[in-house]
Amino acid sequence: MSKTIAIVGLGLIGGSMALALQGFEEYSIVGVDVSQPTLRYATENHVADRVTDDAAKAVAEADVVFLCLHPQGIVNFLQEHKGHFKKGALVTDVCGIKTAVVEAARVLSSQVEFIGGHPMAGTEFSGVQNALKHMFRGAHYIITPDENSSPDKVALLERMAAYIGCSDVVKTTPEQHDAIIAYTSQMMHVIAVSVCDDPRLFDFMGFEGDSFRGCTRVAALDVPLWTQLFAMNAPALDQALEQLEKNINAYRQALRSGDREALAQKLEWSSARKRKMNRAEAEKNKK
Amino acid sequence: MSKTIAIVGLGLIGGSMALALQGFEEYSIVGVDVSQPTLRYATENHVADRVTDDAAKAVAEADVVFLCLHPQGIVNFLQEHKGHFKKGALVTDVCGIKTAVVEAARVLSSQVEFIGGHPMAGTEFSGVQNALKHMFRGAHYIITPDENSSPDKVALLERMAAYIGCSDVVKTTPEQHDAIIAYTSQMMHVIAVSVCDDPRLFDFMGFEGDSFRGCTRVAALDVPLWTQLFAMNAPALDQALEQLEKNINAYRQALRSGDREALAQKLEWSSARKRKMNRAEAEKNKK
Repeated sequence: MSKTIAIVGLGLIGGSMALALQGFEEYSIVGVDVSQPTLRYATENHVADRVTDDAAKAVAEADVVFLCLHPQGIVNFLQEHKGHFKKGALVTDVCGIKTAVVEAARVLSSQVEFIGGHPMAGTEFSGVQNALKHMFRGAHYIITPDENSSPDKVALLERMAAYIGCSDVVKTTPEQHDAIIAYTSQMMHVIAVSVCDDPRLFDFMGFEGDSFRGCTRVAALDVPLWTQLFAMNAPALDQALEQLEKNINAYRQALRSGDREALAQKLEWSSARKRKMNRAEAEKNKK
Repeated sequence: MSKTIAIVGLGLIGGSMALALQGFEEYSIVGVDVSQPTLRYATENHVADRVTDDAAKAVAEADVVFLCLHPQGIVNFLQEHKGHFKKGALVTDVCGIKTAVVEAARVLSSQVEFIGGHPMAGTEFSGVQNALKHMFRGAHYIITPDENSSPDKVALLERMAAYIGCSDVVKTTPEQHDAIIAYTSQMMHVIAVSVCDDPRLFDFMGFEGDSFRGCTRVAALDVPLWTQLFAMNAPALDQALEQLEKNINAYRQALRSGDREALAQKLEWSSARKRKMNRAEAEKNKK
């Protein structure tokens, strides 16, 4: 009998995960959602092998469960269904904060194994209708196993990450993940919305280049999701923003000084860091 | 006899302009540069119909001159070659600030017509070897004609902009251009380098998603170019950054308050602005 992967929450990421995991080893994919239109769309578009709104039954039968809900939804789901998971199952999630989720997973019995995950992919859209089979291609897949994680479960997660096209699997602790993500992801979203808060936004339309588009793309964000992500990681995000303000201020001082040579040196220093990063990325992708 | 367009400065933008303008009406394209390797590359790769290092002769024969140098280079070129341009020629430029350039163009004789230009395209690379024929596709082309500009010269510039694939031609004053560009372009570059100035940049590699890549792509910038652009527009850029700091600070306060409802409302407000902008763009592109 084939094994089963349950994808709980067929939104942008859950839908993409269901599409991307199709054909993985001997697993069949079950999509779980509370919304009938979502389930209907998923069926009509072959997002999963089958779909259901019976979460308790789905997780009871699943060998692997991906929780693809908003952070608070995951916390609530774990609480509600803690007794329903199949013995020996791997339970994981895909959300952008890990400390609160891993903490919430402590309600699970010791016969179920939870490993937090965060495939670093997404778009500014939401919903199953925007799901993409190739969403995860080239993305980092972060996981947070601990000393109790069994090697075969970690290996299974790694095989799935490779199957869906991720460039690598990065292991870290939930706390470290959240501190880092405050900088590499959450701060980018605060920057994007802060740029769009400028009173002159609409007056200045027609003058955007790719730098503006690249910086502000993510401003059209999923409000409930990002409210939770920000709120559940507020101190780390605030700290990253404090550093950013200092860095911007240093540029403002260089600008106001009128010292072109100093400004050039400063730009040389910053841009050399980015070029070094680009080279390291290129080097890694060659391997 | 065919007419001539001289492209002065075969860098990323000049090279792309030469490639993109090939075949435009009855014009032949002459590439002008001081660097022999650049001229050799341009010849071998058919970047222009012909190339020369004799700028005085090239502009004396050209019906249209595109100045594709760095801002200070344009100012210097205008001063040095003010007596060399052909009577009745259209002289324009492609650089990211306009007040200083238009001011410098006042040295030209009244028999030559200068109209400032700024096609809003580019990449984080530089040099003719990175030039792209389709660099300008879908980009805004900003021009700064004034009450003395002749309609046929403006129309010629508009036809060239359409020919190279720009989505539209936006007319404004040099001063207004510089105030706007401080926000829509220069500020994006200060943000990108400021993000890369974070001491944890290299420690946090492996955790970047597309939001990070989109925001920081332009940090690997051309230092002499951007030093000039920033320095020649410092007050407007500083003002844009001041507003950004206020907007980021308002988010920091919302984060620290711990009030999720207030944070959600704030995110709703900002993201609705971006979605409104996206809709306006989509609407415009439909036409």
